[in-house]
Amino acid sequence: MSAMSAKPPAGPRPDAADVRLTSVIVIGTGLIGTSVALALREQDVAVWLADTDQHAVQLAVDLGAGSPLPADGLVGGRADVAVLAVPPAAVAAELSAAQARSLASCYTDVASVKELPLAGARALNCDLASYVPGHPLSGRERSGPAAARADLFIGRPWVLCPQPANEPHAVRLAAQLPQLCGAQLVTASAAEHDHWVALVSHAPHLVAAAMAARLEQAPASALALAGQGLRDVTRIAAAGTDMWVQILAANAGPAGAVLREVAADLTEAAAALESLATGDDEAAKQLADLLERGSDGVARIPGKRGGRARDFVTVQVVIPDRPGELARLFQAAGGAGINIEDVTIEHSPGLPVGVAELWVRPEAVAQLSGVLAAGGWPVRR
Amino acid sequence: MSAMSAKPPAGPRPDAADVRLTSVIVIGTGLIGTSVALALREQDVAVWLADTDQHAVQLAVDLGAGSPLPADGLVGGRADVAVLAVPPAAVAAELSAAQARSLASCYTDVASVKELPLAGARALNCDLASYVPGHPLSGRERSGPAAARADLFIGRPWVLCPQPANEPHAVRLAAQLPQLCGAQLVTASAAEHDHWVALVSHAPHLVAAAMAARLEQAPASALALAGQGLRDVTRIAAAGTDMWVQILAANAGPAGAVLREVAADLTEAAAALESLATGDDEAAKQLADLLERGSDGVARIPGKRGGRARDFVTVQVVIPDRPGELARLFQAAGGAGINIEDVTIEHSPGLPVGVAELWVRPEAVAQLSGVLAAGGWPVRR
Repeated sequence: MSAMSAKPPAGPRPDAADVRLTSVIVIGTGLIGTSVALALREQDVAVWLADTDQHAVQLAVDLGAGSPLPADGLVGGRADVAVLAVPPAAVAAELSAAQARSLASCYTDVASVKELPLAGARALNCDLASYVPGHPLSGRERSGPAAARADLFIGRPWVLCPQPANEPHAVRLAAQLPQLCGAQLVTASAAEHDHWVALVSHAPHLVAAAMAARLEQAPASALALAGQGLRDVTRIAAAGTDMWVQILAANAGPAGAVLREVAADLTEAAAALESLATGDDEAAKQLADLLERGSDGVARIPGKRGGRARDFVTVQVVIPDRPGELARLFQAAGGAGINIEDVTIEHSPGLPVGVAELWVRPEAVAQLSGVLAAGGWPVRR
Repeated sequence: MSAMSAKPPAGPRPDAADVRLTSVIVIGTGLIGTSVALALREQDVAVWLADTDQHAVQLAVDLGAGSPLPADGLVGGRADVAVLAVPPAAVAAELSAAQARSLASCYTDVASVKELPLAGARALNCDLASYVPGHPLSGRERSGPAAARADLFIGRPWVLCPQPANEPHAVRLAAQLPQLCGAQLVTASAAEHDHWVALVSHAPHLVAAAMAARLEQAPASALALAGQGLRDVTRIAAAGTDMWVQILAANAGPAGAVLREVAADLTEAAAALESLATGDDEAAKQLADLLERGSDGVARIPGKRGGRARDFVTVQVVIPDRPGELARLFQAAGGAGINIEDVTIEHSPGLPVGVAELWVRPEAVAQLSGVLAAGGWPVRR
C-alpha cells in the first residue's frame, strides 16, 4: 500500500476539462464499494475506506482496496469524490453526514434506485450542487467485501444522473469513476433510470423468485430432472432477501407496474392451458402469441446472449493474468472511441493468461486490432 | 462409415441379462434424434436414419449419424430398438406405422410429454408390449440435425416409463439407450413424468416468455442496461414457438396448474408493490416471504448451480479431445455404481485436451479416483 502515502489534494481542484481524479473516499465496504475501491487502486487512485462495520473495512484493507478513513477525516483537505456505497434508504443520511464533514468535492452513490436518494437528499437539505447520483449496473449473487472484484464493472453500464443544480466540476469528477473502472457511462434522469431498472432488473428478480418458490415443496425426483433452463430462470432468486426487499420497496411504483403486466400475461396463459386441457384448441393461439412476444423480446437484448449477436463480430485477445490488464485494454479501446458491446473472459486452466472475447460492430474490427497491436496484446485469429 | 456394413441381427434377441444393443433405427433426424444417433455411433451401434424430410436425413448421414433406412426396411431382419424422435402428437402414428413394418424388437420415443403418446398408442391399438416410452432431458436453443451433438445427453437424466404390458426384454433394450449415450436412467410413471416436467421445464418456459414479452416494446436505453440476470431469466424464451406450443398443449393440465400458482404469487407481489408505493410498509413482508420462498426453492435444485453445491465435491479429470472419451468415462463411473451429480467441461484454448469437473458426493471420491486411474484418465488435484 505504499502508493497510499500520497496525500489527497487540499481544497477543490480547478474546473478544467483535463481534471484527473486522484483521491476517493468509499463509504460502505460491501461488494460494490470494495469493488470500486479495488478498481480505482489499480489505476493508482488514492482510496480511503469507511464502514459502520470495522470488520468489513479491515477485510477491504487486507484485500488492497485502500486505507481506513481516519476518524477525523483526511489530513490536509478533502478527497475528489466520496462514493456512498450504502443501501438506497441510507444514502441521503450518509450524504448529509459526509457533506457536513466536507469529505469531498463531489459526492455520488451506487444505489440501484435514484429517485429515493434524491428525494431524501432534498428532504435533508443536502448540497445538491456536489451530489451526482450514480448506479453501476454490476452485481454478483454473493455480497460483502470478500466477493469484491476489481473487474466487476468492466464493459458494464454505469448510469449517472446529473442534476440541474450540479456544478459542472462535480459532474466531471463523477464521470471519471466509470471510466477508471472500465465501465460504459450512461446518463439519464433519475425517473428514466428507475423505470429502466424496474424492467431489466427488479421485475425479473421477482419473476425468478415466483418460479423458484414453486420448487420449495417439489418432489426431489422432479428437481433431479432440472436442466440449465430452470437453473438460469431461477438463478438470481438465490440472492439475499433483505437487500432485495429494500431495493424493491425503493422502486415499488415502477417495479409494480411491470410486474402487474407479467402477472396478467401469466394468468392468461394459465387460463389458456386450462382451456387446452379441456379440449379447447383455440387457446393454443394465445400461448403462441405470448411465446412469440417473448421470443421477440429476447431478441431485443443487445450483446451476445440476446438475438442481436448477428450484428456483432468477436475479436479474441490474449490477456496476461495480471491485475489491471483488462481495465487497461478497455481504456485503450474506449480512448479510441471503440464501443465494446460485450465481453467473455475464458481462463485457460494452468496457463498464466486468459482469452477475452470482445464483441464489436464489424466496422470497428480493423481499428480495434490496431489499438490492440499498439498496446501489445496478441490477437488470435 | 465402414462400421455400418455390420448387418442387424435377424429376429428378436434372446431375453438375457447381458443383452447388448447393436442396431438402432432413428425415425426423425432433428436435434434429439440425430444426437442419439451420433452418440450410438460412437459406441459402434449400427444406426439407420429416417425422416419425412430427406434433406434432414442426408445432413444427419453427412454428420456421421448413420445410414439412410432403406424404403423396404432392413435387409435380413429388424433392429433392436426404433427411436421415434418426432413431436409429441406424432409419436403414436409413427409407432403404429413402425410396428406395422416390424422395424424393431423394442420401440421408444423421446417426446417431452409421456401421457399423450401413450394414450395415442392405446387409441391406435399399438403393441404395448414392445413400446417403452422415454424422454432424454437434453436440449439446445437451436434445433435440427446441424445442431446435434454426440455429447448432448452426457450426465443428463433420461426418463423411461416402463409399462405393465412391457416385455422385460423390451425394457432391457430401451434401458441401454441412456447407458450408451452417457445419460442417467430415471424410471417413472407417465403421470409422474408429466407433472415433473411441467414444474421444471414447461412452466419455466412460459414464465421466461412472459418476462421477455415485456422487452418487446421497451426503450433501447433500458435494454442497454440489461445484465446477466435478465439474460438468464429470459434465455429459454428464444426457442422456437411452434415446438413449444405443441409441448405445452400436450401437457396443458400439469403445466397450467403450476403456472396458475406462479401467476397468483406474481399478482400478489404486484399488489404488494403498489401498496408499498402508496406508503403501506406492511406490504414489504409479503415481498420478503416470496423472496424467501424463492431463495429456498433455488437451494433445492441439485448440482453445482443450485444451493446444494456444498453437499458435493469436485474431481477434475483431463479428457483427451477425442470422440467418445467422455461417454467412456461416464460409463466407467456408472459401471462402478458412482453417481456423477453434475459435470462441467472446460476446453483449454489451443490444447487437444479438456478438463471435466465431476461433482460427486464426498464418500465417492476415493472410488471414482480409482476408476479414473484404472481407465487411464489423469486426475488433477
